[in-house]
Amino acid sequence: MKSYRKVMTFHTESRRAFINITPRIRECLYESGIKEGLLLCNPLHITASIFINDDEAGLHEDFEVFLEKLAPEKPYSQYRHNSYEDNADAHLKRTLMGREVVVAVTEGDLDLGTWEQIFYGEFDGRRPKRILIKIIGE
Amino acid sequence: MKSYRKVMTFHTESRRAFINITPRIRECLYESGIKEGLLLCNPLHITASIFINDDEAGLHEDFEVFLEKLAPEKPYSQYRHNSYEDNADAHLKRTLMGREVVVAVTEGDLDLGTWEQIFYGEFDGRRPKRILIKIIGE
Amino acid sequence: MKSYRKVMTFHTESRRAFINITPRIRECLYESGIKEGLLLCNPLHITASIFINDDEAGLHEDFEVFLEKLAPEKPYSQYRHNSYEDNADAHLKRTLMGREVVVAVTEGDLDLGTWEQIFYGEFDGRRPKRILIKIIGE
Repeated sequence: MKSYRKVMTFHTESRRAFINITPRIRECLYESGIKEGLLLCNPLHITASIFINDDEAGLHEDFEVFLEKLAPEKPYSQYRHNSYEDNADAHLKRTLMGREVVVAVTEGDLDLGTWEQIFYGEFDGRRPKRILIKIIGE
Repeated sequence: MKSYRKVMTFHTESRRAFINITPRIRECLYESGIKEGLLLCNPLHITASIFINDDEAGLHEDFEVFLEKLAPEKPYSQYRHNSYEDNADAHLKRTLMGREVVVAVTEGDLDLGTWEQIFYGEFDGRRPKRILIKIIGE
Repeated sequence: MKSYRKVMTFHTESRRAFINITPRIRECLYESGIKEGLLLCNPLHITASIFINDDEAGLHEDFEVFLEKLAPEKPYSQYRHNSYEDNADAHLKRTLMGREVVVAVTEGDLDLGTWEQIFYGEFDGRRPKRILIKIIGE
């Protein structure tokens, strides 16, 4: 069994952002040399998400509206977590979007559907944050 | 390490449906011959979900009400994604239900609790859609 | 390839509870002797969740409010599932929080970010319930 590990850093200018990281994840897989296995990708932070969906700007605006409806950022005072912080909503938004994805590795490539794209979802940005890629297989 | 891959197709008559796929996943596992490992199951589409819950019709109606409350299908015009499509709600519903499940494989069987059943959740059906089963182990 | 399996039981006094299980998961990993691989942790029940977030009491109160807003416990009669049961909301809450986590194993330890803590989320407690830890790797 082979294993591979990589950490990448993102620093968004806005509080919230969606970044398509599929090409960078694919590069990691190629670098690993693993042909058959499983790939895990997760943030090393609890106010960000790795998720799979469509790379379509309209949908990303819909996600923003959806997340603000279910877990609004403001007023900050509505959350107990916000006594020293202002990011309680980011913890909830990341929960709705999910923490991690596990992707099959087949014949040395990401085994994704036609429209499946892997995203880094940032909900409390404007500072450097890291994600982990771990691949095991052969 | 052994690995196994299978794709299955579903074509529901309704826009939304929940299908218990546990027996079919178990058949894949038996076919793989893998005794100890991890099984990943995910749709190859971004408007469907694989999730684990109870095979109880009342609960499935509750899920429908719950999802329609949090991410209503109509009016279609409420979503930016719906300029050429009408399925933005399906992307959101699948996000709430989750994309994938990872299940332990132990002594050649799915290592599930008594009431855990694996479902294909369709949120934009009436056309053929595929799911992936990937198993790694020994 | 090595594999490891452990089941743990929890019995909460309240209907809902969040329990930080990171130290117990780490003990399992040490016991397994696995140095590189993937760790899966999931409940063997469908009204509980394993999730990763912050060990901060204010945030846990925010989760309670958030979950009660999106999937309220009462009135029980609002759910079809509740003809013989009263726990439909617990199925929905667990869906929002997610079923399982997959964590990378690197150099014999859990490969988590600074603030990532693994929680057992109970939404229908006051009886014994079990979780599964499965680790594969080398």
